Amino acid sequence: PIYLNTKYGTDVKPEEVAITVGAKSAVFMSIVLLTRMGDEVIVPDPGFPTYECVVRYAGGRPVFSILKEENEFRITPSDVDNLLTKNTRGVIVNSPHNPTGSTLSRDDVEGLLEIAEKRNLFIISDEIYEDYVYEGKYYSFLTFPEWRDYVIYISGMSKTWAVPGFRFGIIIARKEVIKKIELLATNIYSCPPSHLQYAALKAFEMGIEWFDRIRDEYRMRRDVVLEELSRLPGVKTVKPRGAFYVFPNVRELTRMLGYKDVDELSRAMLFEAGVLMLPGTAFPLYGGEGYMRISYVLPVEAIREGFNKLRDWIESKMG
Amino acid sequence: PIYLNTKYGTDVKPEEVAITVGAKSAVFMSIVLLTRMGDEVIVPDPGFPTYECVVRYAGGRPVFSILKEENEFRITPSDVDNLLTKNTRGVIVNSPHNPTGSTLSRDDVEGLLEIAEKRNLFIISDEIYEDYVYEGKYYSFLTFPEWRDYVIYISGMSKTWAVPGFRFGIIIARKEVIKKIELLATNIYSCPPSHLQYAALKAFEMGIEWFDRIRDEYRMRRDVVLEELSRLPGVKTVKPRGAFYVFPNVRELTRMLGYKDVDELSRAMLFEAGVLMLPGTAFPLYGGEGYMRISYVLPVEAIREGFNKLRDWIESKMG
Repeated sequence: PIYLNTKYGTDVKPEEVAITVGAKSAVFMSIVLLTRMGDEVIVPDPGFPTYECVVRYAGGRPVFSILKEENEFRITPSDVDNLLTKNTRGVIVNSPHNPTGSTLSRDDVEGLLEIAEKRNLFIISDEIYEDYVYEGKYYSFLTFPEWRDYVIYISGMSKTWAVPGFRFGIIIARKEVIKKIELLATNIYSCPPSHLQYAALKAFEMGIEWFDRIRDEYRMRRDVVLEELSRLPGVKTVKPRGAFYVFPNVRELTRMLGYKDVDELSRAMLFEAGVLMLPGTAFPLYGGEGYMRISYVLPVEAIREGFNKLRDWIESKMG
Repeated sequence: PIYLNTKYGTDVKPEEVAITVGAKSAVFMSIVLLTRMGDEVIVPDPGFPTYECVVRYAGGRPVFSILKEENEFRITPSDVDNLLTKNTRGVIVNSPHNPTGSTLSRDDVEGLLEIAEKRNLFIISDEIYEDYVYEGKYYSFLTFPEWRDYVIYISGMSKTWAVPGFRFGIIIARKEVIKKIELLATNIYSCPPSHLQYAALKAFEMGIEWFDRIRDEYRMRRDVVLEELSRLPGVKTVKPRGAFYVFPNVRELTRMLGYKDVDELSRAMLFEAGVLMLPGTAFPLYGGEGYMRISYVLPVEAIREGFNKLRDWIESKMG
């Protein structure tokens, strides 16, 4: 908790923390714990597919909040407000967001907390991309003292520390929730590998000043992707503030090249141009139709090379 | 699979194997996958508490098969037969067994497989102690070709390789089951830490000839425990064939020392004599009442020292 308290100016106590087998098991246990048969849980669409799957597994009903391009794909308090019913039990938020890179503003976070308070909802806040924020300040739900009442904060070491293979996740929540999470974890997998927990402790003690250099590198990559996208015909892009994804609108390009949808376009790009982008529909329903997810975890030269191939391919197709 | 095929003379294929976060998550996923609301699942009592918890979590009803001292605490085909109802869906077997050290005979395994076949039941066979067998041959469910039809074999590296902190578990089952396990695992925790999987692969390639020495050491420790127990008043012990536990009947001793039950006795032993044995009732219900579990993972000198303390304490109590 010292690490996170310094980072977000809060006062998390050891009994409010659980270490999990990756952020995914944190998501799984939180949803399973808080969702009962028939509960509605609002999930972003596009969004990380696990949210929907686990809500259904738990007997709940996922209610999709379509993220809108005109809102820079943020899940806004008014979006959520429009979806509330008497069965709504919680909201899953993911900021910075996979696959769109959207990042919530201070007003968004405060507005969502107000709704949670008014309607007594839980907020599962998956903040795994929290350090990949390129514009303005990042607002973690932990920054606001109300977190203890409504929020389950989830993060992990897979992104910032780039050790996805460690499967190291973190949950922060009020201690009653953590007690139940511990009970669930004991029956699901006992605990995460013990020696990796020592490694993580050491990493947290070292702070993350070293990450500034990496963030600068990723910001540069993002800007290169945006520049390259601006040179493609039929593509419109919202500038993402976080994560390492860009989510361009390729509807016009899809039409120009004569493909039925982004799934077809994505397949053709992969097999004909040798360039991989995930179709927006992989996340997980309709909200991503017409969009592609570009992941910029590769160096700038590789990004340029991919776009060169893509441009050549598009030109050859349009003859 | 090569490792296990050599060991048990079977023909497991790669698509029939899943690697899990400890044998516990293998148990969790298998039960959750195969149990539906209202299903009855036969679990050993005494037995590992997770079996009962997860059956209940999955909406099933645990039906306890009381392991009897006169059967050396084996779960016998006739025990299981007596508990069958039209709602019985599966049986959880754990041989060698925690906490009694009982180990199934060839007839037991074949008899259980026959019942599974006749009633179309699943058998979840937790064989995590498979290499700790001191008398006669060990019969894994994998030894019998019918395993593919009814059995989910579970093991891991926590016991034989003594790396419980690695959380490395194994499931073997027909490929349709493994496919579903993979789907569950993807949503629960993605996968076990990747570098530990490489370590495990190397360990399997090295075989387990080195374990013979360790098994001999454990057999010796068991025999020391049995000898020491034979010198205590009011204690009757079945000689266990496997695992690293002895499960003496201490009913008479409890009465002689004036305690209400083994929980009271165990607490007094810990705080007054400085010796820890788990009361049989920790596993998890009534079957262990009147018994204690002794774990002999410590060296012979430590075992002797513990029994010396225990004997002095008993003598001082009986004046």
